[in-house]
Amino acid sequence: MDLHSSPLLVLILLTLTSASNFITISSLPIPLMTPLQSLKQKDATSNSKQSNKSLFTTHYFPQELDHFTFQPKSFNLFHQKYLMNSTHWDKGPVHHQPIFVYTGNEGNIEWFAENTGFMYDIAPKFGALLVFIEHRFYGESLPFGNDSYKNAETLGYLTSTQALADYAILIRSLKQNLSAEASPVVVFGGSYGGMLAAWFRLKYPHMAIGALSSSAPILQFDNITPWSSFYDAVSQDFKDASMNCFEVIKGSWDEIITKGSTTEGLMELSKKFKACQPVQSVGSFRDWIWSSYTYTAMVDYPMPANFLMPLPAFPIQEMCRRIDGFPAGSDKIDMVIAAASVYYNYTGDQKCFQIEKRSDPHGLDGWGWQACTEMVMPMTITNQSMFPPYNFTYEDDIISCNSTYGVKPRPHWITTEYGGIRIEQVLKRYASNIIFSNGMIDPWSRGGVLKSISPSIIALVTEKGAHHLDLRFATKEDPDWLIQQRNQEIAIIQGWIDQYYQDLKDTS
Amino acid sequence: MDLHSSPLLVLILLTLTSASNFITISSLPIPLMTPLQSLKQKDATSNSKQSNKSLFTTHYFPQELDHFTFQPKSFNLFHQKYLMNSTHWDKGPVHHQPIFVYTGNEGNIEWFAENTGFMYDIAPKFGALLVFIEHRFYGESLPFGNDSYKNAETLGYLTSTQALADYAILIRSLKQNLSAEASPVVVFGGSYGGMLAAWFRLKYPHMAIGALSSSAPILQFDNITPWSSFYDAVSQDFKDASMNCFEVIKGSWDEIITKGSTTEGLMELSKKFKACQPVQSVGSFRDWIWSSYTYTAMVDYPMPANFLMPLPAFPIQEMCRRIDGFPAGSDKIDMVIAAASVYYNYTGDQKCFQIEKRSDPHGLDGWGWQACTEMVMPMTITNQSMFPPYNFTYEDDIISCNSTYGVKPRPHWITTEYGGIRIEQVLKRYASNIIFSNGMIDPWSRGGVLKSISPSIIALVTEKGAHHLDLRFATKEDPDWLIQQRNQEIAIIQGWIDQYYQDLKDTS
Repeated sequence: MDLHSSPLLVLILLTLTSASNFITISSLPIPLMTPLQSLKQKDATSNSKQSNKSLFTTHYFPQELDHFTFQPKSFNLFHQKYLMNSTHWDKGPVHHQPIFVYTGNEGNIEWFAENTGFMYDIAPKFGALLVFIEHRFYGESLPFGNDSYKNAETLGYLTSTQALADYAILIRSLKQNLSAEASPVVVFGGSYGGMLAAWFRLKYPHMAIGALSSSAPILQFDNITPWSSFYDAVSQDFKDASMNCFEVIKGSWDEIITKGSTTEGLMELSKKFKACQPVQSVGSFRDWIWSSYTYTAMVDYPMPANFLMPLPAFPIQEMCRRIDGFPAGSDKIDMVIAAASVYYNYTGDQKCFQIEKRSDPHGLDGWGWQACTEMVMPMTITNQSMFPPYNFTYEDDIISCNSTYGVKPRPHWITTEYGGIRIEQVLKRYASNIIFSNGMIDPWSRGGVLKSISPSIIALVTEKGAHHLDLRFATKEDPDWLIQQRNQEIAIIQGWIDQYYQDLKDTS
Repeated sequence: MDLHSSPLLVLILLTLTSASNFITISSLPIPLMTPLQSLKQKDATSNSKQSNKSLFTTHYFPQELDHFTFQPKSFNLFHQKYLMNSTHWDKGPVHHQPIFVYTGNEGNIEWFAENTGFMYDIAPKFGALLVFIEHRFYGESLPFGNDSYKNAETLGYLTSTQALADYAILIRSLKQNLSAEASPVVVFGGSYGGMLAAWFRLKYPHMAIGALSSSAPILQFDNITPWSSFYDAVSQDFKDASMNCFEVIKGSWDEIITKGSTTEGLMELSKKFKACQPVQSVGSFRDWIWSSYTYTAMVDYPMPANFLMPLPAFPIQEMCRRIDGFPAGSDKIDMVIAAASVYYNYTGDQKCFQIEKRSDPHGLDGWGWQACTEMVMPMTITNQSMFPPYNFTYEDDIISCNSTYGVKPRPHWITTEYGGIRIEQVLKRYASNIIFSNGMIDPWSRGGVLKSISPSIIALVTEKGAHHLDLRFATKEDPDWLIQQRNQEIAIIQGWIDQYYQDLKDTS
């Protein structure tokens, strides 16, 4: 199996069999925006005082399959899941209290609800209704039931444009049913969900008065952001922690490949890596290690957290501390395994690891499809990074996507449909009321909007923040800069709502 | 055949066989936005010094069938026609000279190019490239060739959202091929094309720096505009010309129906109406007369023109002059025929009329489909109008559209996708650079944006203007207010372009 042919499997499961020549890898494990491999291990509400049960009620909305054509099939209905919490919306319709909508991304909506504590934390202040809408083709919102992932005929309807139209239709219907037509809607999202939130405000300004778009790399397309930026950023994070750490990692890839080039070597590696089953391909070790760096960089939070995995505060520092603790001349493979264990086994309760075995209980394969259709984010790796060099070409991408899904990417569609090229010039004269928040530790931040564009298109950048940290439940360990960032967000959102009410008064 | 079941045929061809009871009509001939029945009769460049040949060159762009899904079929290509005139764009790419794009509406693109002389008139001043893009499913831009209108499976791809995406993709590709990525694009459109121009600016602000949206009833949906407004406006136009004229027309319908209720009466009417063939249904006479009023109201221009038909200046006044010229007690049927003849035979060269016979050489049936899917513009007729009363219900509409096309309308889709409800409040805080121009004689003006929303969302309203009069070639007979309106448009567009160049300078 070609590495790139199934990017999602690679990264959810970290179990690639790969091309034999590692040094000149022919394709790249695209990092998942929201890696979900550890869903079942997590107690997502660990940071919260609320129990799951009180977080939301579950609902389903009859949604049409295709909003942009009128074929007989377009009208087929599926049930789109959404969650609500109306605890603080007691007089919502009467007082036009706001509605905060999370534009769901590539996974079960419960998980995003549970990990977007910011909305719960601020709901009392705003008297807001909380709504979390599941993205089509994820979780339970499967347009063709168990056949949803069958082939391009069914998966063809998994697109961001259809998802945004789903949200618009659901929100309109919901407001009508609640007699809350005059309530302002603010959309929230992190990662791909943050892209959707920003695009929703851009495309449906009549539906949402503003968007908090957290860690959303809407500029990771075409040539807008340098293609090497993602892996450069991961490498920089490690370099910042320790130059030795960076060098050890950079030098380790060769050793893994050399060792794994023989059957005996593979056996030995399986032992070293504590694989639950003997591993068949050396690439699987590589990718297991590789993913621990990229995902730890994404969730390099300044406090202990359990977003992807239970991790200590500043987990990259912990990884490098472990590497740096080895005496000079130690086996680099042992060193990087020790580092990766911070990510995979910080609690120490894992006796062995599923290095190669696939387990996908959540039907989350969709991102692979999305990356092969709309979400073409070219990534390369240069010699300066700690990863082995890699070149991206559109030609390879087309071949790989065709062989995996029988589909042809439209690599320039996202910037055609949503813009992004010269975004400052366009949005300065056009849009309003979007917060783009990014933490610079997060490698996705490089594809985000990092400079404010206008008084109401505001970039909030934190040097020490990671992947949509601002959206998480507040904790006692939150540093001042995070508290401050969230306060800024609250003040800006308050400003949007105040302005909306004033305009409502003026026009009625 | 039910009247409403085929609204387009009704109005292109004015040849309805209809329900027998006229007074309580069960459905309504929806007025075409751009009635094209007279295409073949017209010399569209009659107002221009330029010959057809020098107006444009013809091109074709390979366009994908479905931009919003990734099914195997989505990638099917068709050839989208577009026209260009680069006379004044000699150093376009080097100097970033602007590109003026007409977003084609429901018909052959040549016709719109020939009738949008304003773009030609201002091209020299701006050094602009002119591009006119044909709307999918019209003219030659047929995704399934001769089978395009076969059924809902093929027609299903005829939607405004797909059309806008076509434009975005074509414009991007064209700019790339011309090395003109930095050239600003301004979109122009009249009627449905004006709706598309405005929506294009709203949805693709990164593709067009501004839009001139002429006579575009983007608020003729849902409950935004009173449902009776269109026919109230037509009636008001006639009342303003002459109260007697209004009363004669109002009283004539009964007489037509009574006369046509017997076979002998139908024969007699066929003679009176100078029908080329004996007419089978009295409804056909009604609709023929009816359409002459609505279309004359749309093109009630202050100078002789040949947009739909060759007409004198102020053709409504001419109609009413003829009616008022009859002695008291004359046959009302003779009077309204005389009035209708202004529209159908002002030049006097028609010996007989095709009252019932269908002729559709241009494959322009698409508007009927569009009215039965997205473009649901509810219209009613009250007792105060000069037309027989009519009530619209969504239920009837669903039944009628299902029986004609096997399709279910989505009557709230347009306002969900493009907005329109509380448009002032939304666009005041969001969009920019749109001119909504409307002439109040035009009955479609009532569904337009008639008040400026912000310093850059500007309504230009002329009391004496009609259907996208401002877009026509300048003539010697143009009244001052029209010259002034066009000058305002030129100044505003110049402002957009100046600002764009300034921004371009600032960011580079």
